[in-house]
Amino acid sequence: MRIALAQLNPIVGDIRGNTARIIQAIKEAKALGAQVVATPELAVIGYPPRDLLLQPAAIDLCAQAVDAIAAATQGITTLVGYPERNLTSVGRPLHNAVAVVRDGQIVSKHYKSLLPTYDVFDETRYFEPGSGGAAELTFLDGKVLGLSICEDLWNDEQMLPRQLYHVNPIEQLSEAGAQILINISASPFVLGKNEFRRKLFGHQAKRYGMPIVYVNQVGGNDELVFDGNSAVFDQQGRVIAWAKDFAEDLLVVDLEDAESGAGSQTCRLEPREGVASIHAALVLGLRDYMRKCGFKTVVLGLSGGIDSAVVGALAAEAAGAENVWGIALPSRFSSDHSKSDARQLAENLGIHFHTIPIETAHAALEQTLAPLFSGTTPGLAEENMQARIRGNLLMALSNKFGHLLLTTGNKSEVATGYCTLYGDMCGGLAVISDVPKMMVYELARYINAQAKTGGRAGTGHGPIPESSITKPPSAELRPNQTDQDSLPPYEILDAILQRYVEEEKSTAQISAEGFAAATVERVVRLVDLSEYKRKQMPPGLKVTSRAFGFGRRMPIAQRYDPRTTGV
Amino acid sequence: MRIALAQLNPIVGDIRGNTARIIQAIKEAKALGAQVVATPELAVIGYPPRDLLLQPAAIDLCAQAVDAIAAATQGITTLVGYPERNLTSVGRPLHNAVAVVRDGQIVSKHYKSLLPTYDVFDETRYFEPGSGGAAELTFLDGKVLGLSICEDLWNDEQMLPRQLYHVNPIEQLSEAGAQILINISASPFVLGKNEFRRKLFGHQAKRYGMPIVYVNQVGGNDELVFDGNSAVFDQQGRVIAWAKDFAEDLLVVDLEDAESGAGSQTCRLEPREGVASIHAALVLGLRDYMRKCGFKTVVLGLSGGIDSAVVGALAAEAAGAENVWGIALPSRFSSDHSKSDARQLAENLGIHFHTIPIETAHAALEQTLAPLFSGTTPGLAEENMQARIRGNLLMALSNKFGHLLLTTGNKSEVATGYCTLYGDMCGGLAVISDVPKMMVYELARYINAQAKTGGRAGTGHGPIPESSITKPPSAELRPNQTDQDSLPPYEILDAILQRYVEEEKSTAQISAEGFAAATVERVVRLVDLSEYKRKQMPPGLKVTSRAFGFGRRMPIAQRYDPRTTGV
Repeated sequence: MRIALAQLNPIVGDIRGNTARIIQAIKEAKALGAQVVATPELAVIGYPPRDLLLQPAAIDLCAQAVDAIAAATQGITTLVGYPERNLTSVGRPLHNAVAVVRDGQIVSKHYKSLLPTYDVFDETRYFEPGSGGAAELTFLDGKVLGLSICEDLWNDEQMLPRQLYHVNPIEQLSEAGAQILINISASPFVLGKNEFRRKLFGHQAKRYGMPIVYVNQVGGNDELVFDGNSAVFDQQGRVIAWAKDFAEDLLVVDLEDAESGAGSQTCRLEPREGVASIHAALVLGLRDYMRKCGFKTVVLGLSGGIDSAVVGALAAEAAGAENVWGIALPSRFSSDHSKSDARQLAENLGIHFHTIPIETAHAALEQTLAPLFSGTTPGLAEENMQARIRGNLLMALSNKFGHLLLTTGNKSEVATGYCTLYGDMCGGLAVISDVPKMMVYELARYINAQAKTGGRAGTGHGPIPESSITKPPSAELRPNQTDQDSLPPYEILDAILQRYVEEEKSTAQISAEGFAAATVERVVRLVDLSEYKRKQMPPGLKVTSRAFGFGRRMPIAQRYDPRTTGV
Repeated sequence: MRIALAQLNPIVGDIRGNTARIIQAIKEAKALGAQVVATPELAVIGYPPRDLLLQPAAIDLCAQAVDAIAAATQGITTLVGYPERNLTSVGRPLHNAVAVVRDGQIVSKHYKSLLPTYDVFDETRYFEPGSGGAAELTFLDGKVLGLSICEDLWNDEQMLPRQLYHVNPIEQLSEAGAQILINISASPFVLGKNEFRRKLFGHQAKRYGMPIVYVNQVGGNDELVFDGNSAVFDQQGRVIAWAKDFAEDLLVVDLEDAESGAGSQTCRLEPREGVASIHAALVLGLRDYMRKCGFKTVVLGLSGGIDSAVVGALAAEAAGAENVWGIALPSRFSSDHSKSDARQLAENLGIHFHTIPIETAHAALEQTLAPLFSGTTPGLAEENMQARIRGNLLMALSNKFGHLLLTTGNKSEVATGYCTLYGDMCGGLAVISDVPKMMVYELARYINAQAKTGGRAGTGHGPIPESSITKPPSAELRPNQTDQDSLPPYEILDAILQRYVEEEKSTAQISAEGFAAATVERVVRLVDLSEYKRKQMPPGLKVTSRAFGFGRRMPIAQRYDPRTTGV
């Protein structure tokens, strides 16, 4: 049995367009001799559809889409992911479903059993679970296929530290007689996840002695980037074929090879890991956000620092250098090297570059506020004012020319509130808001190294000026300011943030790992007090296990003090 | 048996402070002769704690709090709401629990069965349900008390259009032998909800023939305002005693009166309904946001229009007039009546008032952008620039003097994107972002009428100038602009928004109700295209069944077109 894994990049809500794309994939699969083609989870509406699922008219349209896809399946069985109305009188309004369609008919419908409701996932907001077991089997050419959806394959008690769910749908399918497991997914990228996924799925293929066909969505949808990396595992748990990472693909596999363990038949590019995978995720996330929102061009402020340099380089790759506008917005506090580094970066990248000095506007605002500010000591208010003038100017360019404004703050800044609301936080997408500062350095070095091996003509070096990488980071909002006036060194800061934000450790636990208690408590306090800023930040591309935004939902008016050890 | 309903206003996360407040309520209840005192849902940590629940150290502290409360219960049984760790190896990490404590001991623990996961609620993100029935009974002085938590009382198939859940915990408790039902809640305010709650609970008291004791949280926590309105229902379903609305209270009731149906024993103020309840909710929501975040003073821009006038009046009531700074920020396009209406409002309210003309800054920004804007036609970019100068100036005052900046946009504007991101959307709290424009008019008239009946000395009229109410609304960002240049009349707009946003109706359904199809489609399109702005708006106080923000989770990069009728 030849199966095609249609690793698609849907546009959320574009039911008509996604349907057309699925039908095209069916044709391609058929042309390649496939008897079955599988699409990702909720492929018809795109993942995550969020509260679009609450619009009954959208659900009706998805039902029409499944019919239209069925009508396009002469001689090929297709597995279509879509939301299905729960027609019983009890329970949540929908099912997260897969329809088996063939020759114009809906052969059967199957439902996801395990509904992730943690981090960025909200599935019990919408879906009622399926019953599992025999209900999720389908029969094809003498084979028994067990159908599962994404999370169904993530409850193996031998591999996962805690079981969130009371049932194991894979065990149920195995007991019901499944011979081949098919899992359609929309599993977003997180650093290191693909490596773990392969172990987890390989383990279960071996445990249950059945091949696993794993079809993932690909592409960026708001904060989430889906990495693709669809794969087929033989019954010894070995990966025998895999699809591209971070790109659409149609992978065709003969399941006999998986059953016989004939070994690797489709060796292609190795999936990227580490900083390379983060780079790929950010480029795809930005490219898709632009494309799916309808932007052709971007604008960003270039400070001469490393954050805006990295975002500028990512933008040039995602959008094409000719579609990127880099703007230097020097103030009376900007150093000469900032201005020259910004210009040099723009030249290296080949993007548009303009300088808009903010002194005139800065002086005008000072003059305007002088009657109210007289007698006060200059401080944060005066510093933020400059960042907000820059925000105003960049948004004016965005509004005037239709550019998407990119926000350049990194995770360490966003965590500690070392950023100005309505200033440098302005923008439609926060490209590196989930990248800690130390990883921004890694990214910068990676980008430069790639450019060199890529043979960047005539320069012999990458686009990011060395001095942007090596100089001490500074917001340049007052004379001789550096980040380390206000924050611990970034290697310490990032290590503490990782433990507090990603691992939910207490201040006592973090201190016990060898960090100075006063530093830990200061960092944690900064994180908690900055929640009001993050509430108003643009969507930011998620690359770690815990990103700010949709996956970390904190109250603002709250007084939990992690230092408290007793009531 | 005398029971005390402790209608408390906790600060989210302030476990130590909430514990002290609960212990104080126990003492008061004891002094009033109560044998039992009941606190609201999750009273120890405050509702909604959101992802604070994911910090294990916070859960440990809650366990300590329950012990401390138990130690303070000599001779009085106390029901304490708190999050309890799920100690089994399977399932979500916590239970939403109530402990029965007495004489220093934890007598028993009981768990919520129905976990709301819709609108603003995310409970299956954290909690594993209880088993229900006999497990949730407790015995006191020969009586069998059935314990339930909030949503457990919201699944009556005779009263609710759709059953979200497969079990009815109240029926289970009744079958297990409960004689009195106690429900501890954290049920937020929505217009009309208290009236429905009384019908729903009264119906179940009668249906199961047992009195219901309903203890609700009160107070504002970010977007949510809890209205209190705790009540006791006799077994005929009549309300025989009730607590204050929108204020802390300790209501003491003899359950024998509820059992005998002795009728109303504690007739106090009637709960507010309609516009009066919205007014009360907004004042409490604003006051608590300030208090719980640590703000003593507020600042807001006064345009002379009705929205900022209403927010100014609410702020004066919530914070005290002496703690409110109203700022007029006139531009070259501001009319004389705008400036005089702003000043008049401030005088009527007795708040601080300053005028900060934006012309100097406006001219400076125009000059700064002239090289890049030359040859373009003035439009949205130039209009937004002015709003963003105002945002910058108001934030400078906020940063300099520690005022909370209030956002004054109404729901109709926020829905259609008729507002400037980083401009008039700046602020820490959006006071009326869930109040549609037509309801803003109602609020203004209510505020003026209240001031008159309240005997506002010497004026004979309310604080909001009549011309702010009667003149055509305008953003005044270009000459002779009015809102109705860009939007349908507000009575039409609000009716369409109600159907699309609150009722999830399709464009076809709305048109079929008699609205012009072109108008409906335009409004719906504006709503969908403005999602990126709302993503970055401050928290806004919820007063309708569907507020923007936490309870409406829409993708941004999406292309669902509600006009589509086929694939």
